[in-house]
Amino acid sequence: MSTSVPSARPSADEHTTGGVTLGPIEGSTKHYLADGDLRIPQRRVHLTNGEHLDLYDTSGPYTDPEVEIDVERGLPPVRGAWRRPAPIDGAATQLAWARAGLVTAEMRFIAAREGCDAELVRSEVAAGRAVIPASHRHPESEPMIIGKAFAVKINANIGNSAVTSSIEEEVEKMVWATRWGADTIMDLSTGKDIHVTREWILRNSPVPVGTVPIYQALEKVNGDPAALTWEIYRDTVIEQAEQGVDYMTVHAGVLLRYVPLTARRVTGIVSRGGSIMAAWCLAHHTESFLYTHFDELCEIFARYDITFSLGDGLRPGSIADANDEAQFAELRTLGELTAIAKSHGVQVMIEGPGHVPMDKIAENVRLEEELCEEAPFYTLGPLATDIAPAYDHITSAIGAAMIAQAGTAMLCYVTPKEHLGLPNRDDVKTGVITYKIAAHAADLAKGHPRAQERDDALSKARFEFRWNDQFNLALDPDTAREFHDETLPAEPAKTAHFCSMCGPKFCSMRISADVRAYAEEHGLVTAEDIDAKLAADMAAKSDEFRRSGGEVYLPLEAL
Amino acid sequence: MSTSVPSARPSADEHTTGGVTLGPIEGSTKHYLADGDLRIPQRRVHLTNGEHLDLYDTSGPYTDPEVEIDVERGLPPVRGAWRRPAPIDGAATQLAWARAGLVTAEMRFIAAREGCDAELVRSEVAAGRAVIPASHRHPESEPMIIGKAFAVKINANIGNSAVTSSIEEEVEKMVWATRWGADTIMDLSTGKDIHVTREWILRNSPVPVGTVPIYQALEKVNGDPAALTWEIYRDTVIEQAEQGVDYMTVHAGVLLRYVPLTARRVTGIVSRGGSIMAAWCLAHHTESFLYTHFDELCEIFARYDITFSLGDGLRPGSIADANDEAQFAELRTLGELTAIAKSHGVQVMIEGPGHVPMDKIAENVRLEEELCEEAPFYTLGPLATDIAPAYDHITSAIGAAMIAQAGTAMLCYVTPKEHLGLPNRDDVKTGVITYKIAAHAADLAKGHPRAQERDDALSKARFEFRWNDQFNLALDPDTAREFHDETLPAEPAKTAHFCSMCGPKFCSMRISADVRAYAEEHGLVTAEDIDAKLAADMAAKSDEFRRSGGEVYLPLEAL
Repeated sequence: MSTSVPSARPSADEHTTGGVTLGPIEGSTKHYLADGDLRIPQRRVHLTNGEHLDLYDTSGPYTDPEVEIDVERGLPPVRGAWRRPAPIDGAATQLAWARAGLVTAEMRFIAAREGCDAELVRSEVAAGRAVIPASHRHPESEPMIIGKAFAVKINANIGNSAVTSSIEEEVEKMVWATRWGADTIMDLSTGKDIHVTREWILRNSPVPVGTVPIYQALEKVNGDPAALTWEIYRDTVIEQAEQGVDYMTVHAGVLLRYVPLTARRVTGIVSRGGSIMAAWCLAHHTESFLYTHFDELCEIFARYDITFSLGDGLRPGSIADANDEAQFAELRTLGELTAIAKSHGVQVMIEGPGHVPMDKIAENVRLEEELCEEAPFYTLGPLATDIAPAYDHITSAIGAAMIAQAGTAMLCYVTPKEHLGLPNRDDVKTGVITYKIAAHAADLAKGHPRAQERDDALSKARFEFRWNDQFNLALDPDTAREFHDETLPAEPAKTAHFCSMCGPKFCSMRISADVRAYAEEHGLVTAEDIDAKLAADMAAKSDEFRRSGGEVYLPLEAL
Repeated sequence: MSTSVPSARPSADEHTTGGVTLGPIEGSTKHYLADGDLRIPQRRVHLTNGEHLDLYDTSGPYTDPEVEIDVERGLPPVRGAWRRPAPIDGAATQLAWARAGLVTAEMRFIAAREGCDAELVRSEVAAGRAVIPASHRHPESEPMIIGKAFAVKINANIGNSAVTSSIEEEVEKMVWATRWGADTIMDLSTGKDIHVTREWILRNSPVPVGTVPIYQALEKVNGDPAALTWEIYRDTVIEQAEQGVDYMTVHAGVLLRYVPLTARRVTGIVSRGGSIMAAWCLAHHTESFLYTHFDELCEIFARYDITFSLGDGLRPGSIADANDEAQFAELRTLGELTAIAKSHGVQVMIEGPGHVPMDKIAENVRLEEELCEEAPFYTLGPLATDIAPAYDHITSAIGAAMIAQAGTAMLCYVTPKEHLGLPNRDDVKTGVITYKIAAHAADLAKGHPRAQERDDALSKARFEFRWNDQFNLALDPDTAREFHDETLPAEPAKTAHFCSMCGPKFCSMRISADVRAYAEEHGLVTAEDIDAKLAADMAAKSDEFRRSGGEVYLPLEAL
């Protein structure tokens, strides 16, 4: 696939076939950890100083040149041969097995991938504080976990609509999104060919796939919410379950009596699923069929091990509507449904807002944990202000980082096109990178083990003027390299001990390195050293430093 | 000036002359509030429903078609004829006058601009919790205030370096940055023609201009820090003071004994000014001349009413180095210097980091307020992670929004080129818009009066499908409009009751509007209404809703 804008320029190793981007990210190779019969993929970044750093890798086989890719055939079913324990009380789910004390292959895979103990994985799943979205019918997926004890995850929404897009574009969007770090993807298609689009995505997706079944159900009744029935919805869920959808958004908390609570809002109901169910409830003056048939839904989910993503159909769509009565009324009902789902052995996560000012973010997490038994929270942003359409990846990254720090387990990305149009290839990449930033910032703030390794490696490379290492350790090596080259394109500049910000004659990083060399040479590395030696030692050495400083500057000034 | 990329596309009213962008931002006109002899500029956004919203306006006369712009002559000296009170104890400063109970014209102007009482302005300045950077020699500037009781401000750095750029480009960067919302600009030029560049910027700048005098002083000694002297520095400060610089960054807290504290850091000293002074201290084994001559500096600043921006020369340059001994040792010294400056009647703000993980941000504000008498905090970001070069406007917007929520008064912007190269015109705009987001998100979170007006107006426009109003109320109307038009370029789409995300057949916003109409028609607007009327009223009306809903959908389906 050709790319027309700089930020999506193919890197040296990147190429495409059949419309799909292949090859490793610049400076990296695929590396597999071995755990018994399991092979856990990692992205190995090779540094110019001979070291390397292994990173969590969501990109699947597409970045492994050893794997032959054929999108018509789909990915190899990596989980196909794994032993599956027997159902427990009708539930063939990771939750049921975790509660029974079983450590599944998926849990072992995840433990190696996260760098933690498999028992932590099992116990968090058993407690309902983490979910493993891994449908039996989607064996192509590489197991991953969503829970606050683990690295914060991100989801990328893709999907065609009635207005634009094609199937090939959607599959490539999935490959493209996971290449840059999407941990799950949601297929939110609303137009034609929903079934076929989803089949292509599932057979080719190395990450869990989520859907909102009500969208397809609505297509089946020609877009009239009032014409929906439980039976149409149920059959749609089964159709999608058979295909292998790993988690489904279900807006079962939009109750009839909550709908009028939104009437005085500035932006009413902004969730598509929420508004469909609100329209249905009002049209029939009947309680939502998603709520009244919730037990039956649980029985279906339990058979395939589909994870609930209980949708927040009444989430606020503006700063003015944040944390209002409608939003929290629905959240209480989601808590009730969480308990029901778990009683069926079904895994649950809870969706969250939306648009929330920074001072109201923590309250969302606190209430969600209190009302929903600490089920993993999965939020859309939230946007910290409404006034920046075209920059809502940024308005929402602020809220996303903060809500993840407070305990949200997965962040649904927002692209620059939010509120304005459908994201293209570049928008998807921008959204994913922006959300990797938010998730990683939260991991750092939470003190997640290993989170700071990458920051330290990159900062060390920066300080030592290893420009290529700095680029390759970045979330987006291609754009970092390109921005650098705009000002200083010559290859020697990548090893020069200066950059374009200050120019060759003066550089704070270089002076700083000189200070370090001096201080270490003279044993001045702690406050005690300094107090003790300052007067005597440094006075004698100042001339020496001036001389050595002059020697260091000379060759650089001569550039 | 021609623009080559979409995000900087000229809007309908925008044009350029002499290399400078002129004309109002799309959908807006210049409006002046009158307060006696003062005329306070505002940006009036005109809405299609006949309403308007007046916004804080940093763009100066460039967006007023009534004002003839001549960059050779410079802007009219708006403050030139204002009465200036007599010096008090040698200080002709807003601080000295505020302490004496005087409300200056600048304070009145600011009160009208901020929408607060002039006494609040005076008392915050008198307490040292706010500063008004307004040199007597820069009468072209429109007064503004930096303090946590007021709207959070942002600064944009511009300036040439030895490697690239020209004078005309720098002046246009200033005009461009203030057009999009920069409250102050800093001229950080390090190459040739520093004096002339600064003169052009000052004579044409409607916002306060800051500098780092040590950069020019270093040029005078051919880039050798060891060759600097107090006399050379002092003369540089006076040269810049005579030109009209409003605030100056002075790294007087980098003491000899603190320098070796940075030796074991991952990224040493990353501040240019900090590293220059560190090199000087080590070379001479003498205490920093900025520290030892600080009283003389205060006397100069007091004459012109230049505001100190006490630089954090030892700020962390990586997550690993955040909140360390070197950083906070310097902060304590800045507190000492704050007291000295204020004893001379000189206004002071304190610069802050840098790179700080989210969990360590609040501590920076707490300590700054405790150690520096609540002098306004002015921070660079901070970046919440190191791993995203090319996206550091975003990594830092996260930190900036949080630190502003905690009390920071002004945020120094970061552009996508941070760490990689010099920002171009588009990078400057991206940096400014991103920081307006961070500042505004903080204003919302702090409950700043009037902050939410714009969010509500935009969200209301969004909900009512007033697309042009949504664009024109946005921080960047041009890019919002352009993103929308990528998918749905036709003019009728700007009034259509749907958008490209869902297509014409189904739209949650439209369903939501239907719900509102229904609920309001039937008096269902509070929880009490609902509990009381649900059973009786709604049952009877459900058929009616279904019918009215059908009527609403019909014309849209026919599109």
